[in-house]
Amino acid sequence: MRILVIHGPNLNLLGEREPEIYGSFSLDDINKKLKKIAKENKIEITIIQSNHEGDIVDVIGNARDITDAIIINPAAYTHTSIAIRDAILASQVPTLEVHLSNIYAREDFRSTSLIAPVAVGQISGFGSESYTLAMYAALNLKGKRRGKK
Amino acid sequence: MRILVIHGPNLNLLGEREPEIYGSFSLDDINKKLKKIAKENKIEITIIQSNHEGDIVDVIGNARDITDAIIINPAAYTHTSIAIRDAILASQVPTLEVHLSNIYAREDFRSTSLIAPVAVGQISGFGSESYTLAMYAALNLKGKRRGKK
Amino acid sequence: MRILVIHGPNLNLLGEREPEIYGSFSLDDINKKLKKIAKENKIEITIIQSNHEGDIVDVIGNARDITDAIIINPAAYTHTSIAIRDAILASQVPTLEVHLSNIYAREDFRSTSLIAPVAVGQISGFGSESYTLAMYAALNLKGKRRGKK
Amino acid sequence: MRILVIHGPNLNLLGEREPEIYGSFSLDDINKKLKKIAKENKIEITIIQSNHEGDIVDVIGNARDITDAIIINPAAYTHTSIAIRDAILASQVPTLEVHLSNIYAREDFRSTSLIAPVAVGQISGFGSESYTLAMYAALNLKGKRRGKK
Amino acid sequence: MRILVIHGPNLNLLGEREPEIYGSFSLDDINKKLKKIAKENKIEITIIQSNHEGDIVDVIGNARDITDAIIINPAAYTHTSIAIRDAILASQVPTLEVHLSNIYAREDFRSTSLIAPVAVGQISGFGSESYTLAMYAALNLKGKRRGKK
Amino acid sequence: MRILVIHGPNLNLLGEREPEIYGSFSLDDINKKLKKIAKENKIEITIIQSNHEGDIVDVIGNARDITDAIIINPAAYTHTSIAIRDAILASQVPTLEVHLSNIYAREDFRSTSLIAPVAVGQISGFGSESYTLAMYAALNLKGKRRGKK
Amino acid sequence: MRILVIHGPNLNLLGEREPEIYGSFSLDDINKKLKKIAKENKIEITIIQSNHEGDIVDVIGNARDITDAIIINPAAYTHTSIAIRDAILASQVPTLEVHLSNIYAREDFRSTSLIAPVAVGQISGFGSESYTLAMYAALNLKGKRRGKK
Amino acid sequence: MRILVIHGPNLNLLGEREPEIYGSFSLDDINKKLKKIAKENKIEITIIQSNHEGDIVDVIGNARDITDAIIINPAAYTHTSIAIRDAILASQVPTLEVHLSNIYAREDFRSTSLIAPVAVGQISGFGSESYTLAMYAALNLKGKRRGKK
Amino acid sequence: MRILVIHGPNLNLLGEREPEIYGSFSLDDINKKLKKIAKENKIEITIIQSNHEGDIVDVIGNARDITDAIIINPAAYTHTSIAIRDAILASQVPTLEVHLSNIYAREDFRSTSLIAPVAVGQISGFGSESYTLAMYAALNLKGKRRGKK
Amino acid sequence: MRILVIHGPNLNLLGEREPEIYGSFSLDDINKKLKKIAKENKIEITIIQSNHEGDIVDVIGNARDITDAIIINPAAYTHTSIAIRDAILASQVPTLEVHLSNIYAREDFRSTSLIAPVAVGQISGFGSESYTLAMYAALNLKGKRRGKK
Amino acid sequence: MRILVIHGPNLNLLGEREPEIYGSFSLDDINKKLKKIAKENKIEITIIQSNHEGDIVDVIGNARDITDAIIINPAAYTHTSIAIRDAILASQVPTLEVHLSNIYAREDFRSTSLIAPVAVGQISGFGSESYTLAMYAALNLKGKRRGKK
Amino acid sequence: MRILVIHGPNLNLLGEREPEIYGSFSLDDINKKLKKIAKENKIEITIIQSNHEGDIVDVIGNARDITDAIIINPAAYTHTSIAIRDAILASQVPTLEVHLSNIYAREDFRSTSLIAPVAVGQISGFGSESYTLAMYAALNLKGKRRGKK
Repeated sequence: MRILVIHGPNLNLLGEREPEIYGSFSLDDINKKLKKIAKENKIEITIIQSNHEGDIVDVIGNARDITDAIIINPAAYTHTSIAIRDAILASQVPTLEVHLSNIYAREDFRSTSLIAPVAVGQISGFGSESYTLAMYAALNLKGKRRGKK
Repeated sequence: MRILVIHGPNLNLLGEREPEIYGSFSLDDINKKLKKIAKENKIEITIIQSNHEGDIVDVIGNARDITDAIIINPAAYTHTSIAIRDAILASQVPTLEVHLSNIYAREDFRSTSLIAPVAVGQISGFGSESYTLAMYAALNLKGKRRGKK
Repeated sequence: MRILVIHGPNLNLLGEREPEIYGSFSLDDINKKLKKIAKENKIEITIIQSNHEGDIVDVIGNARDITDAIIINPAAYTHTSIAIRDAILASQVPTLEVHLSNIYAREDFRSTSLIAPVAVGQISGFGSESYTLAMYAALNLKGKRRGKK
Repeated sequence: MRILVIHGPNLNLLGEREPEIYGSFSLDDINKKLKKIAKENKIEITIIQSNHEGDIVDVIGNARDITDAIIINPAAYTHTSIAIRDAILASQVPTLEVHLSNIYAREDFRSTSLIAPVAVGQISGFGSESYTLAMYAALNLKGKRRGKK
Repeated sequence: MRILVIHGPNLNLLGEREPEIYGSFSLDDINKKLKKIAKENKIEITIIQSNHEGDIVDVIGNARDITDAIIINPAAYTHTSIAIRDAILASQVPTLEVHLSNIYAREDFRSTSLIAPVAVGQISGFGSESYTLAMYAALNLKGKRRGKK
Repeated sequence: MRILVIHGPNLNLLGEREPEIYGSFSLDDINKKLKKIAKENKIEITIIQSNHEGDIVDVIGNARDITDAIIINPAAYTHTSIAIRDAILASQVPTLEVHLSNIYAREDFRSTSLIAPVAVGQISGFGSESYTLAMYAALNLKGKRRGKK
Repeated sequence: MRILVIHGPNLNLLGEREPEIYGSFSLDDINKKLKKIAKENKIEITIIQSNHEGDIVDVIGNARDITDAIIINPAAYTHTSIAIRDAILASQVPTLEVHLSNIYAREDFRSTSLIAPVAVGQISGFGSESYTLAMYAALNLKGKRRGKK
Repeated sequence: MRILVIHGPNLNLLGEREPEIYGSFSLDDINKKLKKIAKENKIEITIIQSNHEGDIVDVIGNARDITDAIIINPAAYTHTSIAIRDAILASQVPTLEVHLSNIYAREDFRSTSLIAPVAVGQISGFGSESYTLAMYAALNLKGKRRGKK
Repeated sequence: MRILVIHGPNLNLLGEREPEIYGSFSLDDINKKLKKIAKENKIEITIIQSNHEGDIVDVIGNARDITDAIIINPAAYTHTSIAIRDAILASQVPTLEVHLSNIYAREDFRSTSLIAPVAVGQISGFGSESYTLAMYAALNLKGKRRGKK
Repeated sequence: MRILVIHGPNLNLLGEREPEIYGSFSLDDINKKLKKIAKENKIEITIIQSNHEGDIVDVIGNARDITDAIIINPAAYTHTSIAIRDAILASQVPTLEVHLSNIYAREDFRSTSLIAPVAVGQISGFGSESYTLAMYAALNLKGKRRGKK
Repeated sequence: MRILVIHGPNLNLLGEREPEIYGSFSLDDINKKLKKIAKENKIEITIIQSNHEGDIVDVIGNARDITDAIIINPAAYTHTSIAIRDAILASQVPTLEVHLSNIYAREDFRSTSLIAPVAVGQISGFGSESYTLAMYAALNLKGKRRGKK
Repeated sequence: MRILVIHGPNLNLLGEREPEIYGSFSLDDINKKLKKIAKENKIEITIIQSNHEGDIVDVIGNARDITDAIIINPAAYTHTSIAIRDAILASQVPTLEVHLSNIYAREDFRSTSLIAPVAVGQISGFGSESYTLAMYAALNLKGKRRGKK
């Protein structure tokens, strides 16, 4: 099994950025944890972070035949990127959406995800554990499920 | 640690009801799995199901001093019950919202949760595994976190 | 053939309540008429009235294998109850929605029915005769038809 | 008693048009059934079909003193014609609105009827039987009732 | 004179629940004060609290001929219950709506009351004194006034 | 000077139709008054009434080179006809919109005129005198004025 | 007969202000014309102009028993002043609303008049002649008519 | 204790104006009652009425250090004046909003108060008694409470 | 192959009407070009123009078995006619929507087409060439494609 | 060069009013700074403050021929006054809008300025320095620029 | 003549991606066809594909003086990119918008194009032929036409 | 002091692009002026321009510890980029938003800035001088102020 983890815009600043919302751990801390789980479960893992919508679209488009599941925290692009939504649909790789903070307990515009309708499911609000839970969910994916187009 | 699991309206019909959306497992299957995890982790677990909004409000109100975390699948009341939202706020017990189906890939009215803003977090779309993931998240809760009022 | 008739909230007050809108007949008058038609057509009929959304959800959930058609006047819950809508979907019993008054000639919020999209059809505005017409429609149901989910 | 039945736009195509929505019977089949009921009940019946909003307005305007009830399936004009609504109000003939399909289980724009608020009542979703039920309801009209202006 | 006081959902938790919004007094404290005023003015008083919408509808429906005024704090049901609104209309008992907190200084969804249009008036924001003021207003009710239907 | 007067749908019923809104005069009464004014001012006048949107579009399209001003009461088409709006723009004949009743004191949907933005001006609420005032305004038109496209 | 003419804010600048919208005549020119008509018809006329909403409310409130009709061009207050609307209702003097420009052919916010629903009627778009037409309409007022409250 | 009572626009017409909505008592009757209560409770009272938004802003701005509570019936300005809202915030005097009629049982635009979010509380619908109740509430104000900014 | 071309309301005025928007060519010019293309490609072509919504519905209904493709410029009815939309669905003839002007660069209400969702495709903004392009597209139609219902 | 500075409602309370939003300087402090800049640049300056919308309209109307630029902080009237907007348009004096606080970081209703579309530009959020910056911008105005009408 | 063809995000996946919506041809197939037409007509053609909004803005900005027409399929950016819209306006190169699928027959959010108002025209729903038609339209462009800004 | 100036998409075309909106100066002209002010005030200045949202997010993220103020003209991204908004929040560098044109006097969608709520303030409409004023404002920043999150 091969899993692709995508961290969206500004997540490179994690730990420095608004710790009262996002926690004090860094992106590196999260990545180490994810790699450890991958190793324990003997699965391949690829992790990328980008602030560029186009990069994320590129990566998902290329993932098609070489990835079994995508775990994505689209961050700000959650609410504005139809291009990433279309990339997920086109790639047909089952995708799990994660958020560190509870996006439903913040500004109104964070309550609408353009990604969620095409994801398998969404995990939001558990800090760095949102990623860990998504890893366990990905490991259990039986066949490919996908939301509505 | 004591965990209270609340299954909202129509979940008693699980397995019989629209299996293409909710899966073919029954509520009993889910409850057994949750009790097993509780036992393994040596925590107390209480499970209720009700089709009555008032019952759910009663249960949450009474949970205050005898529960460390609530896992709730509010089902249809997700979208209509301010009373359950207020009960969660009043109880001050950290609450995790779960959904079997991906509520963002269905009718428009299912995209708005009145409960999410007062929950710790939300897990949606992983079938019966949504509950399992919530159990693991609950086990890791450090102190009490709560959304905006 | 077995028909379940459900009268929603405040219909117990019929005859006393705002006769200029609902007419001067009582709920008993309606029920007698329905039982008479059932007897003439040699079908079983069960009639309940409840002010509790949860009761109505319970009744519909239990109706699944023992009912061929539901005639429901959801009254106030027409406009607010996703739980009853979900119960109808889950029960898969063909359901006919009736209203005594013309709900489209009253307050704006009465123009939207959460139940109608999952019902076979709707009859509104003919006073107690709305029920009688629904009885005749139920008698003619050929196979099970249902609205969109 | 004299009843005027009006079939709105595209109903001339019935039977040929989208049978999965409207059924496989033709407009002629419906008209025969209605005439049979009329004959049995010894009432006069006039039936017209038109694709022209203006024709329907003309017919209703002329019906005033020579008709006791109108049964109308306004079809597409249900959602767009204030002119037909005004004609019904002006004619003061009690009017029953019918629809073959359940208009609340289709596109959003079909959920709003400009006619319903000025009709006695509405019957929707019972296929050709919607007309039959309306005939029975018309036969029982006691005095003239009308919705809000 | 007979007054019926209805406390809506979660008010049983008063004093424990979010004291910065609702104050530190308990529901018992309020009830004692109301009974004292009733006694001083030689009027009968009945007080109930329920978390169940259906219970509140039941109670109002039964109040019809045995109550001269209703004082209701519908709490969360203020914003979601058409059933309670209909019960008040059906009972024809003049009804006074009270709120402990200023519902217009909180979340947006608390600014809309489905009850207010059918109440005599509304008192909001004066803590437990909202009830006391309503008692004095009820004592002075001359004849029955009611809002629009 | 040549003036074309267009009476929209249902105005043929004037006098019979809802006199509390439209007054008890007939369309003939109005037409006689308009012809008298035309005669006194030595101008040509043509008057038509139609319930057909297409007829009204035809008439306006043909009016282009043989009419100096149009007085139109679009009635129900005021709120639904972009075709009539486009015809007025295309004809480039200065057009005066009149209404017998005050369209701003009735149902909400009557408050929006699709015609007004392309008319010279609008006169609403003065009963049959709305037409008379429009005649005087038309007589005084200096050059052609038109609203925004 | 006594007529009160009220010119709203910025109308003192007429002739200087945006002549392409409002024309090149001054407020004085309009007032002279109105006084001439009043003299010819032997009626009393009072004319005021104010940029102050409160002044206009004062004047209307005082007009009650000493005025038979009000002609008002509320200008900018057309779209923002509930106080002037309430004053008209309270005064119970039949009121005619006039506008120099066609308010429906300008910015969107100018299309909504808070005054129109309580006026007898509205005349919009005929330049200074809007006032003249309103004078003739006022002269013909038979009894007092008023819009919805 | 010093209380400032502010009557907003058109309240000078009370008793004359729409008695079916506002009652038949005059503003003087209300003021006498308020002065009597003030005298009985040995507190200073100042009462003003103005139709001018600017006057009311002036008065509130000046009240800052010489007033302990403001009772205001903003009438029409309830729905349109951010300036009065800002004045209340700036003055930091606890303010009680009153309405004679039930503003929630009238036109839609009367349901939104710009003042309520910055007031201590609101009393609506009890006729002249709304003021009396506010007086008693003001007497009991313990410290200064204020709504959200 | 047989193609039906339908020109909607006001297109008879082409060339005379607002040339800055629609160009200076006449409808005849367009028709000649279309007939020439038809001749070159040896296909039958029928062309009609009507200002009547009902006529267009009639024509489309009759086209069913005798037409292989419809090219329609619905003009003003683009934005208001559900009847034409339903006719296209009922006829099941693949339909191409054309517009002379760019409907997305004009008034807001021209941006919504009720026809587009049931058409094969839409060509907008290329003047008379919009029709020519549609002809070429129609010639290439392989099998029947249709939009969502 | 002559500059007119207008301070809108409640700005007389500056320094006393909510210092956490508006800062601790008084209006006098601002005015002294502005006069100093005017003196240094040898330009005339006139400064007024008013809580009355009508006063501000008067002042702007009179400014026409005696002012080269207006600096206005419309405060609460920013969001409600079409009359001030119209006055600016009518005066044709280039106008600069300033705000002490960042109006886009506060309540939603403060995000919409009715004045901005007719101003040269807007400066918001720099405390008293917003005025100073506007003074420098005014000094550099080359010819008269104005927003859309 | 020089034509620039821009393929937006995810179009690199064409043929692999959702063939039921986009067809089974690849981007290469389209490009070959376009180059063939270019060659036949002896015009220069440049073709790019990018998933990056910024790249597309760069390319359009640079196209200004070296391109006579742009054919763009903005794909997902159709609905979200004001930057591309601004680039088209700034470049002043006449631009033709194309879509493979009928964007009006899919999700609601695909019905709004930010690009269309600044394009010459739009061709939507003809599969790969949408591009071919746009090529022919581009060849016929006489002078530069552009939509509203 | 170190200031970072960011020019958003399409600003590289300045001078060539729509001079009637943006003026005839080039980006170079602006940059020279800003560098001159920086030199005079002995502060460091860094200037970048990019059409890529991701680049701007990168730059702001990196600016954190090496910049004292950001002056940004987000251009088209003002209205669509939550990623840039989040970058500003994460960087915690006080940010000043500038616009050459008056964004409130153009298309409706330009009136909403996603950046403004997290900026210190906004300067809009003064052409190239908007930048100069922002420089002066930045020089005077005392401590770090930031809008709401």
